[in-house]
Amino acid sequence: MAKQILFNVFEMSSAMHNSHGLWKHPANERTRRYKDLDYWTELALLLERGRFDALFLADVIGVYDVYQKSKDASIRDAVQVPLNDPAFAIPAMASVTEHLSFALTVSTTYEHPYAHARRMSTLDHLTKGRFAWNVVTSYLPSAARNFGLNEMIKHDDRYELADEFLDVSYKLWEASWEEGAVVNDRENKVFADPAKVHEINHEGRFFRVPGPHLSEPSPQRTPVIYQAGSSPKGKEFAAKHAECLFVGGPTPEHTKQSIQEVKRLAESYGRNPDDIKAFTFLNVVVAETTEEAEAKFEEYKRLWSGEAAKAQYGGSSGYDLSEYTDLDAVFEYKHTEHGQSRAASLTKDNPKKLTVREVLESFDTLKRRFAIVGNPQQVADGIQAYFEATGVDGFNLTHMITPGSLVDFVDLVVPELQKRGIYKTEYAPGTYREKLFGQGKRHLQKGHPGAKYRHAEKSTV
Amino acid sequence: MAKQILFNVFEMSSAMHNSHGLWKHPANERTRRYKDLDYWTELALLLERGRFDALFLADVIGVYDVYQKSKDASIRDAVQVPLNDPAFAIPAMASVTEHLSFALTVSTTYEHPYAHARRMSTLDHLTKGRFAWNVVTSYLPSAARNFGLNEMIKHDDRYELADEFLDVSYKLWEASWEEGAVVNDRENKVFADPAKVHEINHEGRFFRVPGPHLSEPSPQRTPVIYQAGSSPKGKEFAAKHAECLFVGGPTPEHTKQSIQEVKRLAESYGRNPDDIKAFTFLNVVVAETTEEAEAKFEEYKRLWSGEAAKAQYGGSSGYDLSEYTDLDAVFEYKHTEHGQSRAASLTKDNPKKLTVREVLESFDTLKRRFAIVGNPQQVADGIQAYFEATGVDGFNLTHMITPGSLVDFVDLVVPELQKRGIYKTEYAPGTYREKLFGQGKRHLQKGHPGAKYRHAEKSTV
Repeated sequence: MAKQILFNVFEMSSAMHNSHGLWKHPANERTRRYKDLDYWTELALLLERGRFDALFLADVIGVYDVYQKSKDASIRDAVQVPLNDPAFAIPAMASVTEHLSFALTVSTTYEHPYAHARRMSTLDHLTKGRFAWNVVTSYLPSAARNFGLNEMIKHDDRYELADEFLDVSYKLWEASWEEGAVVNDRENKVFADPAKVHEINHEGRFFRVPGPHLSEPSPQRTPVIYQAGSSPKGKEFAAKHAECLFVGGPTPEHTKQSIQEVKRLAESYGRNPDDIKAFTFLNVVVAETTEEAEAKFEEYKRLWSGEAAKAQYGGSSGYDLSEYTDLDAVFEYKHTEHGQSRAASLTKDNPKKLTVREVLESFDTLKRRFAIVGNPQQVADGIQAYFEATGVDGFNLTHMITPGSLVDFVDLVVPELQKRGIYKTEYAPGTYREKLFGQGKRHLQKGHPGAKYRHAEKSTV
Repeated sequence: MAKQILFNVFEMSSAMHNSHGLWKHPANERTRRYKDLDYWTELALLLERGRFDALFLADVIGVYDVYQKSKDASIRDAVQVPLNDPAFAIPAMASVTEHLSFALTVSTTYEHPYAHARRMSTLDHLTKGRFAWNVVTSYLPSAARNFGLNEMIKHDDRYELADEFLDVSYKLWEASWEEGAVVNDRENKVFADPAKVHEINHEGRFFRVPGPHLSEPSPQRTPVIYQAGSSPKGKEFAAKHAECLFVGGPTPEHTKQSIQEVKRLAESYGRNPDDIKAFTFLNVVVAETTEEAEAKFEEYKRLWSGEAAKAQYGGSSGYDLSEYTDLDAVFEYKHTEHGQSRAASLTKDNPKKLTVREVLESFDTLKRRFAIVGNPQQVADGIQAYFEATGVDGFNLTHMITPGSLVDFVDLVVPELQKRGIYKTEYAPGTYREKLFGQGKRHLQKGHPGAKYRHAEKSTV
C-alpha cells in the first residue's frame, strides 16, 4: 500500500494570511468574516468532511513595520493585520467536529510558562486530545517593543529561553499530576490524592516555577509539539523537541536536506527519527479543467500585491527592500539580528548572483512555483511528485482565498488522492498524537526530553 | 412597572467552586464534566432558556495553600483545583447562544496588557459584543511564586499596576483604530486606512507599549468592566473603572453601604452613578414544596466540608485558621499583606467579640444564611426582600450542584419572578453593554476614564 500523506490547512485569524493582496477577491470570505465564529465552525466542518488531519493556526504578536520603516503598507494591504488571537476559535471548532485536530502557534518569548501551561492543558481537555502547540520564538521587532523591550532578545537567546520554557512546561504537564491522582472517591471524601500531586520546583536561568500545575492531566498531557526552526539553533531545537517539523526551502531538494539534517540531529539526541513527522507548504489552484484552473490563477495574479509581499518579507526577515534603490547592483544581505535564515533563501542555492531588480521583481508577481495549478489529476500528480522530491510526511495547505480554495481542494483533489490510495478515507480513532503515530501513543514517546518527567509508576500508554 | 432584576450565574472551570465538599453529590455533574466542552455548551443553553444576562466566570491562578501551610486540603477536597483556564469555554458557548453574555475574570498582575488586549478584543469579536472582563489583582501568594516572585506585590501596588494596565488597555481599544479605519475598499486597494490606525505610545511606571492594537475595533471596543474591590484602594479602583460592581458583605446593610460608597466615589470622578450596576451573591435551594427544599438543603449540609471552607478562606484572606488553637480565646486578626478586606468580614459589623471556637464552627457547617431555601414563592419573596435590602441591581447566582441547582432555578424560580414582573421574559437586542444600559450604548459612557481616548470624529454611539 502506498504511504498516506498527512494534510493540514494553514490559516491565520486575520483578513489575509499569505496570499498577498487577495483580500480583494470578491469570493474571499475571510476578508469580512475572519472575526466571526461561524467562519471558523464552517471551516472546521469543511476540513473534517475533507478528512484533513489538522487546522494549523499561524500567529504573530506585532505588526510588520520593517518595510519602508512603517506599518502603513501592512495596514493598507491587510498584511496579517488586523489580527485576532487564534486560540479562541478552537473550542467552537472542536465542538462541531470529532476528529479534526488543531495546531496553535504561541511564542515562548512573550508568555509566562505557568499561565501558558494551563492554557494548553485546557485546550487539550476541551478538544479531547486533538491539540498541538506550534512553538515559535517570534521574529517581529514590533512585538518586542510592545512587550516593553528596547530591542529584540537576540536570536540564540530566544532559543535558550524557549528551551527552558519547554522544560518548565514538560515538568508541569508530565511530572506534576501522576496518573490516577484524581480518584473522585466520594466515600472516602477524596477528590484527588495530594500524595500524587507534586510541586515541580523549577529554578532556571529565566524562570522559577514551584508548581504544582493547575490543570489535571489532559488526554495527551503535553500537546503534540510543532516547530519550524530553520537556523542552526532552530534546527537543534526542533531535533530535540519537535514531533512535527514544519520546513520550507527554496527547492524541494533543500527541504529534503533540512528534514534529513533535523532527523539526524534528533537521533544524536537519543530520539527515534520516525518520531518526527515533516511538513512543508502546499498551495493549489484546481478546477475541473486545466483551462479553468489557469484562468483562476490568472485572476489571482491580477489581484496580487507586491507591496504586501515586501511588507511581510520585511517583518519576517528583517530586510527592508525599500532600501535597495540601485536596481542593477548585485543584491547582498546586510547583517541582521532577526535571525531568520529564511531571509537568506532568496540567494541560497542560487549560484548566480541576483540583481536588486531581479529580487524586487520576484516579489511583484504571483509566481507559478508558489502553487500547483491544474485539473484534479494534474494537481494530484504534482502533489505526488512534490511529496517524493521533498521526503515530507505531509503538507500544510495554504490558500488563495477561503473557503473557496479549500472547498476546491476537498471536492476535487481529495477524491483523486483517495483513489490513488494516498489519502485517508476515514479518520483513525484517538488523540492527535495517536492519529499521527499510532494507537496507544497518547503521550510523548520514549527519547523525547519531556517523556523523562513522567512518573515511573505510571504505566498507561 | 417594577424594576427588573439582573441575573448572572457565577461559575468556575473547576470540579468545585464555592459549595465546599459538594463535589461528592452524585448529581453534581461538574465534578466529572467541568473539563468537557458539552458541559459548558449545555450550561449556556440552559442559561439562555432561563433568560440569564450573563455567565460570570471566576478564576484564580494558583492553589489555596495557606491553610495548614499546605496545598493538601485543597487538592483533597477540590478547592478550586484542578482548575482550567475559563476563557476557552466561552467561544463554544457563544456559538450555541444568541443573547447570553460572558464575564471573564483575568488578573492584571500576571498578564501583559498588549497580549491581553488582543485576547479581550478577540472574545468581544467572536461573541459579537457579549463580553465583559472582571478585573482582579489576584490574592493568592502561590500565584506570585509561580510567576517567579519571592513574594506578592503589595496590595496597593497591585492596584497601581492595575490602574496603569487599564489605561494601556483603553488606549489600545479606544484610541488606536478609529471608527471607519477598516474600509475594505477593493477598487482603491485599501483594506484599512493607515492614517486612521494610531500608535498609542504609552510610557508609564509599569509598561511601555507603543502599539498599535493588533485587533480591529470589536463591537464594544472595551469589554464591559466588572470589578469587585472591597478594600479602600479597591473601592476607589471600582469607582473609577467598574461598570458592574460585584460586592459582598456580612449583612445586606453592609452591602448597601458599600454600593453607595462606590457610587459616591464614582460621582467624585465625574461619572454618573447610574453607569454602575451593582451585583451581589445569591444562593438558592428551591423545590416544588418547602419540605422538599428543606430536605435538599439537609442533604447538601451532610456533604459540606469545613476543611474545604477553611482552605479557601486561607487562600483568599491570607489567614491560616489552623494556627488558632486556643478555642476560648477571642478571635483576632493579625496583620496580613493580602489585602482582602473580606478577611475582616468575620468580625466587622459584629459588635460582639467572637471566640476562636465560634469562628471555626462558622466554617464547619453549611449555614442557612448562605442560601434562600424554600418553594418558588418563598424563594421569590426572599429574593425581592434581599434585592430591596441591599440596593443591588442584580445577583450573581451561585450553586450547590450543577446543573441541578440552576435547572431548579430556571424551572421554578424564573417563572415566579417573571409573573411578578421583575424578571425579563425576552432579551433586549444588542451588545452586553446595550442590554445593561440601553440601546445605542455600545461603547464606554461619558465620564468613564476609557471614553476620553475615543477619537472626537468618531460619532457612533
